[in-house]
Amino acid sequence: MSQDFSLDEREAVYRAIEERRDVRAFRSDPVPDTTLQRILDAAHHAPSVGFMQPWNFIVVRNPATKARVQAAFRRENEHAAEKFEGERGRLYRSLKLEGIMEAPVNLCVTCDRTRSGPNVLGRNTVFDTDLYSTACAIQNLWLAARVEGIGVGWVSIIRNEDLRTIFEIPEHVLPLAYLCVGYPKEFLDEPELQRKGWAERLPIDELLYQERWGARSAADAA
Amino acid sequence: MSQDFSLDEREAVYRAIEERRDVRAFRSDPVPDTTLQRILDAAHHAPSVGFMQPWNFIVVRNPATKARVQAAFRRENEHAAEKFEGERGRLYRSLKLEGIMEAPVNLCVTCDRTRSGPNVLGRNTVFDTDLYSTACAIQNLWLAARVEGIGVGWVSIIRNEDLRTIFEIPEHVLPLAYLCVGYPKEFLDEPELQRKGWAERLPIDELLYQERWGARSAADAA
Repeated sequence: MSQDFSLDEREAVYRAIEERRDVRAFRSDPVPDTTLQRILDAAHHAPSVGFMQPWNFIVVRNPATKARVQAAFRRENEHAAEKFEGERGRLYRSLKLEGIMEAPVNLCVTCDRTRSGPNVLGRNTVFDTDLYSTACAIQNLWLAARVEGIGVGWVSIIRNEDLRTIFEIPEHVLPLAYLCVGYPKEFLDEPELQRKGWAERLPIDELLYQERWGARSAADAA
Repeated sequence: MSQDFSLDEREAVYRAIEERRDVRAFRSDPVPDTTLQRILDAAHHAPSVGFMQPWNFIVVRNPATKARVQAAFRRENEHAAEKFEGERGRLYRSLKLEGIMEAPVNLCVTCDRTRSGPNVLGRNTVFDTDLYSTACAIQNLWLAARVEGIGVGWVSIIRNEDLRTIFEIPEHVLPLAYLCVGYPKEFLDEPELQRKGWAERLPIDELLYQERWGARSAADAA
């Protein structure tokens, strides 16, 4: 029975899931080391294929290093912006998509494709399961950060090759995510892309199928 | 201030993260629809690149369908077992790696690579960010299930092509995960692969670097 979660505990987890945000605007106050350690430990408790634990975390605070990452972001973002035209292009260019310099901590989260050797339990069929494990670790980190009052923003507009060069990451390791971490200016009550009219949350019913792809009910599937 | 989490709420989230397990042994009692809906809604509140929400969830209860999936698992698992020899091979074969038939609900979680069209904000540089988003959704689902007293087991030893055939999944959609969902026989107090002596949790300090790959301190990195 002691393994059960109380109603209050359950609500706390759902609240963290619902109120987690991708944060791009940070305050400058530092993240205490003990707090950072707790959220990294949460990441480390993610599930991983064959208990492979393929992740590493590079903690970045050096402004010179962050500036190199931001320059890599800006180059890529210029290419990305060109994909959106007219009103959409103007909206894209008005969005703040990273807080690299202002966030006191940046994290480069990597996936070592060779950890645990060539044969990993559960990874014989789908080689990329180690990447999925690493993404699960990031989600743990994101939720733990949220309950600590800390914001996390995933900057996906950076070439892997740039991250590899800046952080001297070897070939067998993939830089899977670059995260900005710090106390946010605010936690918005809805995703920023929704507030700005870029995209809407889809109705969940449209995403659920029964028994097979495309079937809205078990009878429909039969 | 109302955005803050109390100490109790914080502890609840850390507890869910620490006590989540990959579950392979299930009781037969059904998962209430309202509970299943809550954990699917938690998944749907995951972060996604450009608010793309690329996931779908196929809910599977039909024993005939499950049996086809289990047969696909068994074929692949026979190949996988051959990779481990001697004592390790015997240990591998003694492990229970799936609960497909006994879990009352199975979920095939997919990623639609084309959702939101060809240009997705944040996905211009790294195309696979949609897969990482979907893995984040699975981690949300896993944690929500844990606080509901429900176990989840990720069966990664199934060929994508088999899932595609069984569930009639179109080419532009990747079947990213196959999950068994139900009330567990027990939640172990440590990962099963650790308890059985297959692998140990790595010391987190070995996974942390400062400023660049391989550096144990900022001074080391300089």
